[in-house]
Amino acid sequence: MKIDYRREGELVLKNQIDIQLSTNRKEKPSFSNLKFGKTYTDHMFIMDYSREKGWYDPRIVPYQPITLDPAATIFHYGQTIFEGLKAYLSENEEVFLFRPDENIKRLNRSSVRMCIPEVDEELALEALKKLVAIDRDWVPNMEGMSLYIRPFIISTEPNLDVTPSQNYRFMIIMSPVGSFYKEGMDPVKIAVESDYVRAVRGGTGNAKTAGNYAGAMLVQEKASASGYSQVLWLDGNEKKYIEEVGSMNVFFKINGEVVTPELSGSILEGITRKSVIELLKYWGVPVSERRISIDELHEAYQKGQLEEAFGSGTAAVISPIGELFWNNEKMLINDGKTGDLSLKVYKTLTGIQTDKEEDPFGWRVKVD
Amino acid sequence: MKIDYRREGELVLKNQIDIQLSTNRKEKPSFSNLKFGKTYTDHMFIMDYSREKGWYDPRIVPYQPITLDPAATIFHYGQTIFEGLKAYLSENEEVFLFRPDENIKRLNRSSVRMCIPEVDEELALEALKKLVAIDRDWVPNMEGMSLYIRPFIISTEPNLDVTPSQNYRFMIIMSPVGSFYKEGMDPVKIAVESDYVRAVRGGTGNAKTAGNYAGAMLVQEKASASGYSQVLWLDGNEKKYIEEVGSMNVFFKINGEVVTPELSGSILEGITRKSVIELLKYWGVPVSERRISIDELHEAYQKGQLEEAFGSGTAAVISPIGELFWNNEKMLINDGKTGDLSLKVYKTLTGIQTDKEEDPFGWRVKVD
Repeated sequence: MKIDYRREGELVLKNQIDIQLSTNRKEKPSFSNLKFGKTYTDHMFIMDYSREKGWYDPRIVPYQPITLDPAATIFHYGQTIFEGLKAYLSENEEVFLFRPDENIKRLNRSSVRMCIPEVDEELALEALKKLVAIDRDWVPNMEGMSLYIRPFIISTEPNLDVTPSQNYRFMIIMSPVGSFYKEGMDPVKIAVESDYVRAVRGGTGNAKTAGNYAGAMLVQEKASASGYSQVLWLDGNEKKYIEEVGSMNVFFKINGEVVTPELSGSILEGITRKSVIELLKYWGVPVSERRISIDELHEAYQKGQLEEAFGSGTAAVISPIGELFWNNEKMLINDGKTGDLSLKVYKTLTGIQTDKEEDPFGWRVKVD
Repeated sequence: MKIDYRREGELVLKNQIDIQLSTNRKEKPSFSNLKFGKTYTDHMFIMDYSREKGWYDPRIVPYQPITLDPAATIFHYGQTIFEGLKAYLSENEEVFLFRPDENIKRLNRSSVRMCIPEVDEELALEALKKLVAIDRDWVPNMEGMSLYIRPFIISTEPNLDVTPSQNYRFMIIMSPVGSFYKEGMDPVKIAVESDYVRAVRGGTGNAKTAGNYAGAMLVQEKASASGYSQVLWLDGNEKKYIEEVGSMNVFFKINGEVVTPELSGSILEGITRKSVIELLKYWGVPVSERRISIDELHEAYQKGQLEEAFGSGTAAVISPIGELFWNNEKMLINDGKTGDLSLKVYKTLTGIQTDKEEDPFGWRVKVD
C-alpha cells in the first residue's frame, strides 16, 4: 500500500477509507414497488482528486447532495465516466457481486479515453465492497431484485477553458431495484435506426461516458413513440453493420451459431456480453465475435435461420428480442417468444449471480 | 407576456426577473493578467424547469455554488447544452453584445437535439442583458478584452434511468477575458486528425453539448504534445471531408474564393462563421459553403492556390492558420503569416463588436 499525505498534515494509508455513519437512517421503500434509480441508500463513497495530491481522502459518508461551482467543467464539457453493477442477495442471505473487478477495469479504460486520472483498482474495489457491506440491508430480499451500484467520476474544476479538469470527484451511490421481469420474460420490439448514430469509430462509443447516453435520448423517445422499446444501432461510418441495441450489447443465433458484433472501438465492452460469450464457449455452443451487417441478418431471417436474438446488459441481464423492424418490414423472431438458448443463458447468469448455480468461472464475489 | 404560477402561490409575469443583488462585491482581478474562464462576476442568472410548471422562477442572484443530488442526470447521462458570447466595451464606455439573438436561437436548437425543453427567447435575451447591465463594471476596459458570457442548461432530476430528465436548470455565468492576441496575431499550427473523430452525421455534432467537447480532449492533448495548437477534424463517415478546426469553424481562401465546409449536421453552426460569410458576401468576395476534402485542399496547396486559412469562433473571432500537418507533410500557408483577408475580417468584426466600425447589418446590440 502506498502512503499518501492527507488533510491537516495527517499521514494515512492510501487505502484507508474513512467511515462516517449516518445517524438518521432512511425508511426503506416497499421493495415490491420499486422504480429504477429513484431511491438511494443511506451512504455513499467519495474520493477527490487534485493534480497536486492525486486521489485523496477516500470516505464513506451519509448520502447527501453535493455542492459545485457553476463553472465546474462537468456542467460544460462533460468530462465524466460511470459504471453500473449489482449486488444480489442469495437464499442464504449472503450478498454477492458479479465480476466487480471487470467494472473497475472498465472504469479506468473509460477514464483514459476521457482524460480522467485512473483510480487504484484495489482501493476502488474495497470501497465498493465496504459501501455494500454498510448498506447491506438495502439489498432487496425478493426474487429478481438487487441493489444497483453506480460508481462515477465527474470533473469539478471551475474552468471554462476546454481542457482536462485539474480536479475530479469519484463517487459510488446505490439504489435498490425491482425485478426487470415482474410479469415474466416478455420479448421486446426493436426498431433498426437508420438516421441517427450512437457512436463512430474514433469517437467515444467504447467509453462509458455521459455524452453517448445524452445523444441517444432523442432517438429513444422517437422509438418509444412508435411503439418500440429500443433501437438497434448501426455503425456510424456506413450505417450497415450492427452495433448495439439501446444501451445493451446484442446477440443473434443464426443457424445454430451465436453471433455478436466484434469490439470495433465504437461498441461498449459489456461485462454481461463478455460473460455470455464465455458461458457459450464453456457449453460448447458455437459463438463468434465479428462484423454482422443488417443485410446479412435480414437474409438469415428470410432463410428462416434467424433463430433467436437478445440484448445483454447489467439491468436486464438478458433481454430477448421478439421483433425487429427494418425497411418497413417486421422480422418476427422465434414467433415473438423467448428462445431456449436466451432463457438458458439468463437462468444460468442470474443463477450464478444469486448463488443458486455453480460458478465454475469464479465470477461471484462475496461481500463480508 | 404569459402569466405563470410561481413560488408560494404568488402570481407573477413570466418575464419578470427577480433580482437579488450581492452585498459583498468581489475585488476585480487585474484585467491585464486574466486567464480565460477562471474569474467570475458578482452575479448569475438562474431559472428552473419542472414538467408541471415549465420554466419558472427566473432570477438574478449573487454568484454562488449550486447543490445537486449525486444522482442528478447531468452527472451520469450528460443532458446539457451551452452557449458562449461576449460583451464588449466601446471607447465611449458603452457595452455591446454581438448577435445575442443568434445565440439564444442556437441554444434552443441544441436543446431540441438533447431532449431539453426550449426557453422563451425573449426572456432569455432579457436575462442576458439584465445580468450584463448589473455586472457592467466587469466588462474590461482594455483593448481586445471582453466579458465572456456562458448561458447553459443542465438536467437536474435525480434518476439513474436513461430517459430525459423531468427537471432542468438554466444558468448564465460571466467571466472577464483577456485579449486573445496579447502579442499580436500569430498564426497557429494545426494537425489534421486521421484517427479520432469529433462527430458524425446523425450524432450530436451540430448541438453545443458537453459530450462533443469531452470526446475531443484526448485528441487535443495529443496534438499539443506534438506542438500543434489544434486539430483539423475530418468527417466521421469517410474521414475525408473537412469539418472544423479544434472548436472553431474553418475557412480556406483558394484561388480567390473563400470556401467553408457546408453545415452537414455534424458541424456546429457558428455565429462567427455565419457573420464571416455574410461579411464576405457584403464585400463581394466569392464565398461558398460546400463539401471540401482534405485531398482537394492538398491539391490546391500543391498548385500554390491555398492562399489563406483561418478558424472562426467567439473566443478568437478569427484565428489564422499558418501551417497544416497532414500525411507527414507540412503545408505552409501564406508563408506562415496572417493573410490580408483574414486580418480584414478580424478587424471588421472586432470593429463592429466594439463600436469602432459601422454596423450595416445591425449585429451590435447595446446594453442599457
